[in-house]
Amino acid sequence: MTTATLDLVFSALADATRRSILSRLREGSATARELAAPFAMSWSAVSQHLKVLERAGLISRTARAQWRVVSLRTERLDDAAQWIDTHRKDWNERFDLLEERLDALEKEEGGD
Amino acid sequence: MTTATLDLVFSALADATRRSILSRLREGSATARELAAPFAMSWSAVSQHLKVLERAGLISRTARAQWRVVSLRTERLDDAAQWIDTHRKDWNERFDLLEERLDALEKEEGGD
Repeated sequence: MTTATLDLVFSALADATRRSILSRLREGSATARELAAPFAMSWSAVSQHLKVLERAGLISRTARAQWRVVSLRTERLDDAAQWIDTHRKDWNERFDLLEERLDALEKEEGGD
Repeated sequence: MTTATLDLVFSALADATRRSILSRLREGSATARELAAPFAMSWSAVSQHLKVLERAGLISRTARAQWRVVSLRTERLDDAAQWIDTHRKDWNERFDLLEERLDALEKEEGGD
């Protein structure tokens, strides 16, 4: 995943309405109008949010009969999670090392 | 974690320079000037990025001797990862259920 793509994904996730839309899509695919229903905002505002999510690769739109149906895509979420996990893990490893050193020091002091 | 905080965290992560700064901090704490060194940008631009990271709770700044030292904080990364994981897991669970159903159907058909 390119740096620019990660920018798009995190940027798309940085909005409560867009996160709500993704949460709704966990329950299954929906039409754009169904997704817009819970929000007290204009249709064009919701449509704009869907565009941002689609550009980030977090949703896909497919034709089903006469409707366009929106679905959740999780590959990009996987990539975003991977970036975050790398940064959490390294830090935890550093803490583990620090703890090991402290344990070793305490044992040394206990032995004196 | 509040919705507004998640907005700040994801928004802070949506920039390659800020992600690079966090990556550098995995190696250990650093002064703001050390963090700025690899980037071909003005000091005030880097300083602005550090402000965004601090407001999102992704770094902390503490005084050490006459220097202010920047450190990585991972609690907010944990929260962001948790949000993402929830959305990946649910989806994977749905796939698992679907697979189970398909398996059951195939067995039924095989039994006929």
